[in-house]
Amino acid sequence: MIRHIVLFTWTDDATDEQKETVTAELRKLPGVIPQLRAYTVGADAGLNQGNHDYGVVADFDSVDDYLVYRDHPYHQELIAQHIKPILATRAAVQLSL
Amino acid sequence: MIRHIVLFTWTDDATDEQKETVTAELRKLPGVIPQLRAYTVGADAGLNQGNHDYGVVADFDSVDDYLVYRDHPYHQELIAQHIKPILATRAAVQLSL
Repeated sequence: MIRHIVLFTWTDDATDEQKETVTAELRKLPGVIPQLRAYTVGADAGLNQGNHDYGVVADFDSVDDYLVYRDHPYHQELIAQHIKPILATRAAVQLSL
Repeated sequence: MIRHIVLFTWTDDATDEQKETVTAELRKLPGVIPQLRAYTVGADAGLNQGNHDYGVVADFDSVDDYLVYRDHPYHQELIAQHIKPILATRAAVQLSL
């Protein structure tokens, strides 16, 4: 299994509407990319200071399936339209489990 | 459910032995902290440039259970002994799912 993990911080001027749109749009991806085996997305719960603002955990059966997701035009368009405009920093790993 | 996610980058002078010790030590935690419902840890798979070096995903039934883990003396000692000496940067979120 490949577990893809990415954390974001948003720009200071990102609006609540923009942040909520990211969640709404990401939640469409399992219906578009059947290679997604499990998908959890959401805003930081606010338990600790210094955290990133947002997290995504996506599980795949194989590296090839992860690459389908990573490079999928629908996903890339979502990133360009909804994530990049409010993205400050990004941290990611892929774990082979 | 609370999903705790943390990503690390290691210092340039971190040795393979030090990095492998982090995994070996973290994998002891589910035997020490029964509040851990699921726990995946590991080094980045090397699929993408610019990634962080290491990831941890820990699932809990509740915020209180997460706090037991976060503040557990065994966990804190592990961080002090094995993670902080080779830690360059850290990114974390907790998602309420």
